Amino acid sequence: MINLTGAYTDQYQLSMALVYFRMGNGNDQAIFDYFFRKLPFEGGYAIFAGLEDLLDTIENLNFDQKDLEFLDQNGFPGDFLELLGNFNFSGKIFSSREGDIVFPTRPVLRVEGSLLEAQIIETLLLNLLNFQTLIATRASRMRMVAGDRKLVDFGLRRAQGVGGYHASRAALIGGFDATSNVAAGRDFQLPVSGTMAHSYIQSFENEVDAFREFARVHPKNCVLLVDTYDTLRIGIPNAIQVGKEMKARGEQLKGIRLDSGDLAFLALRCREMLDEAGLNDVKIAASNQLDEYVIKSLLEQAAPIDIFGVGTSLVTGQPDAALDGVYKLAYAHGKPRIKISENIAKTTLPDRKQVYRLKDDVGNWIGADLVALEEEKDFGMMHHPFDPGKKMQISDVDMEPLLEKVMEDGHRVYEKTLPLEIADYSRSQLDKLPGAYKRFRNPHIYKVGISDGLKKLRESLSAKNE
Amino acid sequence: MINLTGAYTDQYQLSMALVYFRMGNGNDQAIFDYFFRKLPFEGGYAIFAGLEDLLDTIENLNFDQKDLEFLDQNGFPGDFLELLGNFNFSGKIFSSREGDIVFPTRPVLRVEGSLLEAQIIETLLLNLLNFQTLIATRASRMRMVAGDRKLVDFGLRRAQGVGGYHASRAALIGGFDATSNVAAGRDFQLPVSGTMAHSYIQSFENEVDAFREFARVHPKNCVLLVDTYDTLRIGIPNAIQVGKEMKARGEQLKGIRLDSGDLAFLALRCREMLDEAGLNDVKIAASNQLDEYVIKSLLEQAAPIDIFGVGTSLVTGQPDAALDGVYKLAYAHGKPRIKISENIAKTTLPDRKQVYRLKDDVGNWIGADLVALEEEKDFGMMHHPFDPGKKMQISDVDMEPLLEKVMEDGHRVYEKTLPLEIADYSRSQLDKLPGAYKRFRNPHIYKVGISDGLKKLRESLSAKNE
Repeated sequence: MINLTGAYTDQYQLSMALVYFRMGNGNDQAIFDYFFRKLPFEGGYAIFAGLEDLLDTIENLNFDQKDLEFLDQNGFPGDFLELLGNFNFSGKIFSSREGDIVFPTRPVLRVEGSLLEAQIIETLLLNLLNFQTLIATRASRMRMVAGDRKLVDFGLRRAQGVGGYHASRAALIGGFDATSNVAAGRDFQLPVSGTMAHSYIQSFENEVDAFREFARVHPKNCVLLVDTYDTLRIGIPNAIQVGKEMKARGEQLKGIRLDSGDLAFLALRCREMLDEAGLNDVKIAASNQLDEYVIKSLLEQAAPIDIFGVGTSLVTGQPDAALDGVYKLAYAHGKPRIKISENIAKTTLPDRKQVYRLKDDVGNWIGADLVALEEEKDFGMMHHPFDPGKKMQISDVDMEPLLEKVMEDGHRVYEKTLPLEIADYSRSQLDKLPGAYKRFRNPHIYKVGISDGLKKLRESLSAKNE
Repeated sequence: MINLTGAYTDQYQLSMALVYFRMGNGNDQAIFDYFFRKLPFEGGYAIFAGLEDLLDTIENLNFDQKDLEFLDQNGFPGDFLELLGNFNFSGKIFSSREGDIVFPTRPVLRVEGSLLEAQIIETLLLNLLNFQTLIATRASRMRMVAGDRKLVDFGLRRAQGVGGYHASRAALIGGFDATSNVAAGRDFQLPVSGTMAHSYIQSFENEVDAFREFARVHPKNCVLLVDTYDTLRIGIPNAIQVGKEMKARGEQLKGIRLDSGDLAFLALRCREMLDEAGLNDVKIAASNQLDEYVIKSLLEQAAPIDIFGVGTSLVTGQPDAALDGVYKLAYAHGKPRIKISENIAKTTLPDRKQVYRLKDDVGNWIGADLVALEEEKDFGMMHHPFDPGKKMQISDVDMEPLLEKVMEDGHRVYEKTLPLEIADYSRSQLDKLPGAYKRFRNPHIYKVGISDGLKKLRESLSAKNE
């Protein structure tokens, strides 16, 4: 459905690439880190998503004729366009697994390639990873409060244009069960569901006829929307009537859906009315401006809701709406590189790095990731990345390296994984994260620190640039 | 770049369509209205955008083989899939012009077609129009505060995935001058700009060499990013040196860019330093977490910034992140239709309607739009849409109909218009909107009312459904 070419970039990537090309050093090796600085939703963790799409895109990335013609009009010279015409990414990517639980400051992914190619993919990398990580993280918060109730993504109509395509994929990775989005279901093998809207009911003379016809055509997937006219006085009695007719035919009314009014009050009354009518197996679905806070508070009021349909807040990550992921140069022309900032938290971490998750001797996460130079083998202390005084002893803890090679010579070396499998993996990882980091308000801060070697290197490069 | 097929929809559209198909009445004519209920950003108006993309998409919409195979797996029957395989939209669309100033409650666009086809396009219509209207509106707010300074969209990396493609288009319609997004520039003929990132500077041993090489390769488009190491102590002196070298060669350093620190303080100091060096023509560009409020307050502090680069807040519409546009059935099977709600503001307006902008005798907008039945010709009173007591006399005002036919028999009858032309039109319309409606906080509320005939029809349909 979506074919991203080399033009899916910020023009400055090409302006810079042209300079490297003219200087003749665009093929020098470079290393860039992808990381973010701030967790979304004031939460305590994020779920990394979008990697599969990134690898697929990069593996097939080129500049097509339309791209080259446009860049020609924009003043890029012919010999450079010829270079772009032959572009294909031939570097390496080391990455956290898709679905991993990730934290600020530490590299989530590392690109190694020529300066030119690594620069050109920056924008699309940020675009795909920032967004899906945002949405998977939001979905995971909703999953936490929903327990084992069903969560369905209803967001496509309120999504940010065609961004909705990947939003549904990321929602599943974060813990949703299904989506209404047929295109995403088709391309990512997601479970797709959907029954009826108000317009369907309105198009009939009587609500009960609308229900009856739907049951006739969809006897195995009949969820009746009961609030078009009056939920308790008209909608539920009609649904009960059709539910009983289905029962008499040996069929099962699957559910009713509430889309307005006080969902807790209505769900309680609907449950009573359905139960009194012997329709105890009929599920109650609810939708309308839900987010994790509303779901939590509905369930705290014991609203007997079995299925939540979530739209805007899920697929847009409203109010945050973006993850602040960045892509920073760590190495070029044979030397580690750094960006200094008046704000120490924005000074980058130089050179080729690995990230380790710290564990106790039985494998439990102890709540810290270490960023170290790749060649470092023995670790003494972990230092706070920005506060020079803070450190902790780590010589006696177990450490699991987190960045694995997923692309080599421009080709995937990472087995294709479906969103449903990624979701399972992600859930297994999230189970290992202690509850204190999952709190909605003021979660415990997961520590990210740097090694002795990385600290020294950063200090020496900073001093040089003073 | 993006090829939307029939599968770009919520599955319930197809579940409903299947019922209409089985009942044999899917070809009955229906009318749907697109409108929204709440203005974004607590503002006083919205700018309608996305129409061109919608028309292009609908004109070419079909279900391809992959769509049909997936729907087959999902249990849709063969005869229905055959129908979808032959799908093409053959209805009419009446719409506000793209770039128009629009308000809540009143139809922005009306679809007339078979019940089946009008239902199937709902999701993609909402998806494309809600998002672009949101972004064009946000851009317009930034344009209002920026005056005639240059505004550039830098948002692609933080955009909601491939949604960023249309975000750049909508930003231009709302008043931006250019974008960094090459793919959007290519397909929508937008001005594209872009120079350098921190990584470019970092890849050199010395900042001044990085600047010098850039000036050499891009003598006509050289904007130097000055905050990689230390803006005032290193960056600006280096930029001044290269600016003087360019001047000596008869070239012109176009600008410098600030991307961190206190932008007002730095811009003032940079301006002084540049002016002292005789580089009075060098522009100052600023970026980093800007929105309309930050731009406004920078300019109130007399920050001498000539160019603003805006990212996240522009392309995501953060914190709102979505426009709540809906698509409601107004007519089907030969009769006007209504949806009742416990919340009167959610009760829909039935039947085929026109919208009029009310003007005084010299053509000035008087701050009200009237929604009337299409056949109504004489207007006495305009009624508040939800508060039965409120009304005003309108028999003596001029009225301009706002919905024009833009599609007939499934084909555009609306001349293709480029985003730059739409932006000009939009600006001319916004000039007609009195300032009170453009305030950022507590803007005056633009009135939207209903005609005598529409009020009577709604009351009689509501009574029938009591």
